[in-house]
Amino acid sequence: MALLLDQQFAPLPDNNEIATKTFLESVSHLPPFFDCLGSKVFAPIKADINGNITKIKAVYDSDPVKYETLQQILLVEKSIHGSEWPKVGATLALMWLKRGLRFIQVLLQSLADGERDEDNPNLIRINITKAYDQALKRYHGWIVQKVFKAAQFAAPCRSDFLKALSKDQEVAEEECLAKVRQFLINFTANVDAIYEMYSTMNAELDYLV
Amino acid sequence: MALLLDQQFAPLPDNNEIATKTFLESVSHLPPFFDCLGSKVFAPIKADINGNITKIKAVYDSDPVKYETLQQILLVEKSIHGSEWPKVGATLALMWLKRGLRFIQVLLQSLADGERDEDNPNLIRINITKAYDQALKRYHGWIVQKVFKAAQFAAPCRSDFLKALSKDQEVAEEECLAKVRQFLINFTANVDAIYEMYSTMNAELDYLV
Ligand SMILES: CCCCCCCCCCCCC/C=C/[C@@H](O)[C@H](CO[C@@H]1O[C@H](CO)[C@H](O)[C@H](OS(=O)(=O)O)[C@H]1O)NC(=O)CCCCCCCCCCC
Ligand SMILES: CCCCCCCCCCCCC/C=C/[C@@H](O)[C@H](CO[C@@H]1O[C@H](CO)[C@H](O)[C@H](OS(=O)(=O)O)[C@H]1O)NC(=O)CCCCCCCCCCC
Repeated sequence: MALLLDQQFAPLPDNNEIATKTFLESVSHLPPFFDCLGSKVFAPIKADINGNITKIKAVYDSDPVKYETLQQILLVEKSIHGSEWPKVGATLALMWLKRGLRFIQVLLQSLADGERDEDNPNLIRINITKAYDQALKRYHGWIVQKVFKAAQFAAPCRSDFLKALSKDQEVAEEECLAKVRQFLINFTANVDAIYEMYSTMNAELDYLV
Repeated sequence: MALLLDQQFAPLPDNNEIATKTFLESVSHLPPFFDCLGSKVFAPIKADINGNITKIKAVYDSDPVKYETLQQILLVEKSIHGSEWPKVGATLALMWLKRGLRFIQVLLQSLADGERDEDNPNLIRINITKAYDQALKRYHGWIVQKVFKAAQFAAPCRSDFLKALSKDQEVAEEECLAKVRQFLINFTANVDAIYEMYSTMNAELDYLV
């Protein structure tokens, strides 16, 4: 479980304001995860998420004090960009990044909850579909949805996926799932807080790609 | 036709040896072309082709004399990389790049030849399928083939495609096609010569992605 679990997200502070620097450190460990899925089909997804992180990092680095928290990023960019906002800058990058994070969260939660296709117990397609439906589908036009449907056949089987989460160490399935549950505590809290911030600040968009 | 035609490939020299520098200059105008297709679905393809060009350029820049022609790149890399070759370095990058170039060539040739689906005269799917079958399909596993099938629905219609080739200038269709034919002369000769070089040097691979 080295891969995910040694890289726990920080606990959410009482005021729900996420420190940009810590957040960027934590999410930077996620893209390599797509390599573990064992297919080059996921390279464009990895690239998209990497692009989001790079964009947010560039804004942060331009003024680490001004952009100390994710909330400050949205506030400052709103005041800078006028009517272009929120489809601009780190606000847009984080809008999409949070959807990828939600996808990962729902997928892991569904596995941790033991949700399975009884006819294909070693496939994770049912968990992937759930994650996709909740996190991404509504933002994808029919062509990208079709592409996704095709691409999910490249997903690893359940046992290989859990092994990849454990960085190929032999770990008992239950032990791995217990660590997933542990990881999900802070991760889910962070993702929820980001969603809430977008909702509160009226920064959510629902255009299709 | 600014987009393609102002960027003609150089005529093939008598000895068929393509100058790396000129070649890189010419192909560098192709990736922006994918933006004209009007869908973000093509971004991963653009990124893949850009990656090939960057890799070849890096090798060239490391020693412009040693790598003066494409043929020298293959010869030198073969001697440097031993049994890893040809699945390595600029040799691998050019192996894939030439398939993308072949795709573009067959697509344009098919349009120039007036091949059409009589039932859908304003679609270019029949031309895209031909290009895909000839240039790429055999190197794609079934999942990537399925992804391609889905992605091609994002292709522009014939009239928009020709307009994009003309950089949105209003040009009569026949005039545009005449320029495509003009462009194809040197372009096809260059692509053919690269294929021949891979064949002669036993540098072609047929593994699937
Ligand atoms: C030869 C063959 C030809 C085939 C051609 C293939 C074409 C394939 C196309 C597939 C698309 C790849 C995924 C990327 C999709 C992206 O289009 C979307 C929107 O992307 C956002 O767009 C914004 C502008 O609107 C900004 O540019 C954002 O960038 S910005 O930083 O500049 O602001 C950017 O992230 N992101 C998404 O939908 C996010 C996707 C997250 C995925 C999460 C995990 C899923 C795991 C799946 C497991 C089964
Ligand atoms: C949320 C949604 C989830 C969906 C996930 C989406 C997944 C989509 C995956 C689609 C694949 C995108 C296209 C890229 C395919 C690439 O995998 C292949 C091989 O790519 C090569 O691989 C080598 C190693 O084997 C080296 O890395 C090469 O790199 S190296 O430079 O490092 O040596 C690299 O080019 N290139 C290809 O097949 C080439 C493709 C050329 C295409 C030409 C034009 C086609 C136009 C089509 C018009 C209709």
